[in-house]
Amino acid sequence: MSALSHIDENGRAAMVDVSAKGETARSATARGLVTMKPEVLALVAAGGLPKGDVLATARIAGIMAAKRVDTLIPLCHGLPISFVGIDFALDAGAGTVTITATAKTTAKTGVEMEALTAASIAALTIYDMAKAADKGIVISDLRLLAKSGGKSGDWTAP
Amino acid sequence: MSALSHIDENGRAAMVDVSAKGETARSATARGLVTMKPEVLALVAAGGLPKGDVLATARIAGIMAAKRVDTLIPLCHGLPISFVGIDFALDAGAGTVTITATAKTTAKTGVEMEALTAASIAALTIYDMAKAADKGIVISDLRLLAKSGGKSGDWTAP
Amino acid sequence: MSALSHIDENGRAAMVDVSAKGETARSATARGLVTMKPEVLALVAAGGLPKGDVLATARIAGIMAAKRVDTLIPLCHGLPISFVGIDFALDAGAGTVTITATAKTTAKTGVEMEALTAASIAALTIYDMAKAADKGIVISDLRLLAKSGGKSGDWTAP
Amino acid sequence: MSALSHIDENGRAAMVDVSAKGETARSATARGLVTMKPEVLALVAAGGLPKGDVLATARIAGIMAAKRVDTLIPLCHGLPISFVGIDFALDAGAGTVTITATAKTTAKTGVEMEALTAASIAALTIYDMAKAADKGIVISDLRLLAKSGGKSGDWTAP
Amino acid sequence: MSALSHIDENGRAAMVDVSAKGETARSATARGLVTMKPEVLALVAAGGLPKGDVLATARIAGIMAAKRVDTLIPLCHGLPISFVGIDFALDAGAGTVTITATAKTTAKTGVEMEALTAASIAALTIYDMAKAADKGIVISDLRLLAKSGGKSGDWTAP
Amino acid sequence: MSALSHIDENGRAAMVDVSAKGETARSATARGLVTMKPEVLALVAAGGLPKGDVLATARIAGIMAAKRVDTLIPLCHGLPISFVGIDFALDAGAGTVTITATAKTTAKTGVEMEALTAASIAALTIYDMAKAADKGIVISDLRLLAKSGGKSGDWTAP
Repeated sequence: MSALSHIDENGRAAMVDVSAKGETARSATARGLVTMKPEVLALVAAGGLPKGDVLATARIAGIMAAKRVDTLIPLCHGLPISFVGIDFALDAGAGTVTITATAKTTAKTGVEMEALTAASIAALTIYDMAKAADKGIVISDLRLLAKSGGKSGDWTAP
Repeated sequence: MSALSHIDENGRAAMVDVSAKGETARSATARGLVTMKPEVLALVAAGGLPKGDVLATARIAGIMAAKRVDTLIPLCHGLPISFVGIDFALDAGAGTVTITATAKTTAKTGVEMEALTAASIAALTIYDMAKAADKGIVISDLRLLAKSGGKSGDWTAP
Repeated sequence: MSALSHIDENGRAAMVDVSAKGETARSATARGLVTMKPEVLALVAAGGLPKGDVLATARIAGIMAAKRVDTLIPLCHGLPISFVGIDFALDAGAGTVTITATAKTTAKTGVEMEALTAASIAALTIYDMAKAADKGIVISDLRLLAKSGGKSGDWTAP
Repeated sequence: MSALSHIDENGRAAMVDVSAKGETARSATARGLVTMKPEVLALVAAGGLPKGDVLATARIAGIMAAKRVDTLIPLCHGLPISFVGIDFALDAGAGTVTITATAKTTAKTGVEMEALTAASIAALTIYDMAKAADKGIVISDLRLLAKSGGKSGDWTAP
Repeated sequence: MSALSHIDENGRAAMVDVSAKGETARSATARGLVTMKPEVLALVAAGGLPKGDVLATARIAGIMAAKRVDTLIPLCHGLPISFVGIDFALDAGAGTVTITATAKTTAKTGVEMEALTAASIAALTIYDMAKAADKGIVISDLRLLAKSGGKSGDWTAP
Repeated sequence: MSALSHIDENGRAAMVDVSAKGETARSATARGLVTMKPEVLALVAAGGLPKGDVLATARIAGIMAAKRVDTLIPLCHGLPISFVGIDFALDAGAGTVTITATAKTTAKTGVEMEALTAASIAALTIYDMAKAADKGIVISDLRLLAKSGGKSGDWTAP
């Protein structure tokens, strides 16, 4: 028996069959971290104050990616996403942007991958826009913070 | 003057105009880390030995994502990708999969984002296929290892 | 307080959270106009009589675009489109094609953008196929004609 | 009157309006055949035993294509796919791979095109990966085996 | 003989065969107009001053659409876009946003459709974000302003 | 050593690295067959005579799919397609549509998959539009007819 939900008894990849599951309201929140030189973060932040364009661009990229998760992650189901929101918190001293992404749906399966993908693509967009100023940017700590809805119920990261 | 290449003098997002640049052979290699409970990694590895499907699926997802970077990262240029390869190294004790992704092109601009996106989507695919067994999986240490080609020449992470 | 539904209290872009809304049958009809030299319209129409290919191509392009609105318009929700239809009316003297597009769904939010995008991409397709014969083509008067369903009820352009 | 559901009374292409139809559980199974030289099939199978990568890659490609049918087939509706599964049966003597693909949904219209497209793209992926060894590969016998659900009820190929 | 470049001698749609054409540097600039109630434009502008998000979102949407023109307009060729830039000019009294979009490539065919599509999708994004405050928004005057490069040489709208 | 070009020495899927190959003009032609009841073909043909919409729709679908092969077939390279053309030949007595698709590029690798995918998606589109009238439609005989260009030179099916 396999504990990996996408692997069938013969070890082959398969979508989980959710045909018989009911639709419930679901939510998931994920977090990721982008770390760069503090002087580069200052440029992101300064650019951010008058026009917001680095973070605004990253937000849009993350939201759009969340709506396309089923075309990116092979075994994910397409879900009717009812909300995606992305927040950024900057730590000037540490040179970090903390990205928090939340996705919601009413569906037969959860939206964890949508929240994680939104955070991930937002992080990559920040990386792309800052990489000319810092080749050593690192994306880290991408994880699920909380989820609600579905048979397994609510969960919050310990 | 801005040191962020995608922000113009008015703080607005813009694609970098590469019209006048010459095409050169370029390569980039990126790395990312997926950390899960060692007993879950054992399932991935065991599934991996006879059929290879978790890692085979993640490899395909990463390769396909690398070819779509310009539709995911708003200001990236579309490039004629000549190669994408993804390798996985498993550490049974630490519960980690180290993903190494390489992308190549002959183009006016570099393929760092393609390598990073390949690693990122491969990591998210592993996450998706293992998440039913471990809600605490973390993706980290996503960074550029090396790049070659272009005006700025070769670079290797220190 | 903002009257722009996609801007939150901090001025940031966000999807409207429709999680708590009920699904209702919805419909929207949009119109757009393509104006070209009458002699070029004659070619479109003549091509249209035996084979219909300019308008047939534009119709297909508009229908396909309506199904992808959530990947084009950043803050639009993905909707289960139940119908898209596109009609063309040609005015030989004025050199105009009037495009009327209707979209339907049963969803938590409306299909105005699907109807408008269908008309817009159909117009651009006509433009593309006729532009070698007329560089001065203009697309205009793209607007909503009517919508029905949802909390705000039915609406018809005055 | 036309018996072709996507052609309206004027002979124009149109999506079938399914607004008034109820959602029911639906399933469809399709089959396709890929024929190559037996010695090339042996390479596919041998590659298949330790690593499974030709067939694993084809399975992933087919599953991902099934989720994008509405962007490939112009008049198909987007459906919330609840399951896609793909099986392969190899006949070493005949040099054939028989592909069987099943798709499921709960929707207003059927999933035949999803099952057929999954089998078709899986077949093309096998073709792509084997074509360097055999230019004469043929894809054939792509057909519907069975469908269930919807107003017209269950159907099995005679 | 047909003067419509995408229609062959039998009236059928076809891509123009550009195989034998040389690659040249090309540029195109298009313009479009979005007209809304002045008090709604004031909200867009106010949102625009501190955070820029309506226009920043429209700019990103337009840039991303320009990179996908070959998947939207059926007979367009895929081009290696080297630059897309979008500017907005607001007329508070008239309630208008004038969108100017420029695209560049080095390719066998021109980028008019990329510039026009960028302007069109940017306009639809503004429409989407303002439509809750004004159902009567109109998109108009979408046209080519100038193009350069290619066999037909430079052209500026009269 | 493996004779399957996409499988590396460890049996893993990989894109063929074409970085070092030169660009040459390439062409490929593929064929496929759709067989239905003759009376259903008569509807397709009749619909085809005044408006051409079934075949016009299938042609557009095939052309658009050819431009997206790299997003459908996992290990295919993205190519700058310079031409895609699709022809249909109807045999009223046999109830068959023979689809012939040609693709051209100037690139480092061939366009066989583009021609085959164009024919395949055109066939599926015909299937979709005729399936309400005939559940027993079969797509068969999808194969390469000829290719030219590249290191392996010209080839014509025997």
